Amino acid sequence: MKIAVLGTGMVGETIASKLVALGHEVKMGSRSANNEKAAAWVKKAGAKASQGTFADASAFGELLFNCTLGTGSIEALEAAGKQNLKGKILIDTSNPLDFSKGMPPGLFTPSNDSLGERIQRAFPELKVVKSLNTINANVMVEPSRIPGEHAVFVSGNDAEAKRQVKQLLTEGFGWKQVVDLGDITTSRGTESYLMLWLRLWGALGTPDFNISIVKKG
Amino acid sequence: MKIAVLGTGMVGETIASKLVALGHEVKMGSRSANNEKAAAWVKKAGAKASQGTFADASAFGELLFNCTLGTGSIEALEAAGKQNLKGKILIDTSNPLDFSKGMPPGLFTPSNDSLGERIQRAFPELKVVKSLNTINANVMVEPSRIPGEHAVFVSGNDAEAKRQVKQLLTEGFGWKQVVDLGDITTSRGTESYLMLWLRLWGALGTPDFNISIVKKG
Repeated sequence: MKIAVLGTGMVGETIASKLVALGHEVKMGSRSANNEKAAAWVKKAGAKASQGTFADASAFGELLFNCTLGTGSIEALEAAGKQNLKGKILIDTSNPLDFSKGMPPGLFTPSNDSLGERIQRAFPELKVVKSLNTINANVMVEPSRIPGEHAVFVSGNDAEAKRQVKQLLTEGFGWKQVVDLGDITTSRGTESYLMLWLRLWGALGTPDFNISIVKKG
Repeated sequence: MKIAVLGTGMVGETIASKLVALGHEVKMGSRSANNEKAAAWVKKAGAKASQGTFADASAFGELLFNCTLGTGSIEALEAAGKQNLKGKILIDTSNPLDFSKGMPPGLFTPSNDSLGERIQRAFPELKVVKSLNTINANVMVEPSRIPGEHAVFVSGNDAEAKRQVKQLLTEGFGWKQVVDLGDITTSRGTESYLMLWLRLWGALGTPDFNISIVKKG
């Protein structure tokens, strides 16, 4: 499958490399066609890897990953161009982290909104599925780094889009506990959870952790 | 031990009953000395149970539980009177849920503040330990309702206060996975998690669930 990964940071590179390893053709998108980090990744990742602008990558991909920083996600998708987004699934891994008031960051969305919703509202031609935003990049693509079953969430308005994303998460990335929270407004839940995730990282001393959902039998 | 439980709702009643069952003397506090819900609880809970105003209960308790609604917590503690709070541990189970904009609720604190911090700032004479605010009342006092190990969190500035609260949580309530997140600012993490908890409740169809923290071995 042809997949666009928007963003050249740790999350973008980790997901893009995993997708190539799974046999997909991946174009990494960034602001410029000759981004240095994207070029370094393409060189390392081999023949199925390529790079381009946000628009190039989005035109190429049948499926899109948003791995840009939350502060730049809307702008990146605007640069991608609506004609290149139309009818496509966007797996949105971003978080609305606000570093402007110091560390640890807060959220730049209020608790009755979310970045997932903002993206869906701004780009109704996309089928946005919020996912993978609650774990560290390494865990996203290799959940077996952490023992036992633990959770990844999906939020989105389109049932068929969520079905396809769940299939990639389970069969591709190896996730076992995929929890469908509901429509895109449930992104508020997973994005707010980052506020706990950041403190757990501090308390546990490693980002290699996750939560498992346990319920009364 | 003499314990005050401030609040007559489901959380207050459940915690107060558990504390009586553990052999403690418990005074349930509310706005009025003859609150009907408190009276019904006292009648049911027996000789170690009593009721009074927020001030009566706080004067009585060597340890205090805040089980009031988040919107009324500061006011309840003001009514309790600073002289009745001085030097005492307050286990704060409240959440800053904002029901004013419809369901599900948001939070009335921004992500760079928390109700736990607001209480600690407003009442520096208290040793505030935020805890138990991430689970349903029944699970708070009976974690074995849910199979396996799962997490309860503590946040607070006073190490000795947290040690005593942890002891009550483990030896009294039966908790096995008590995670110390750090100082009272880490309340932001557990209070924000409520935004995910509410959606998990919807997705799972029961409030009898919790999260377990799993990390790389």
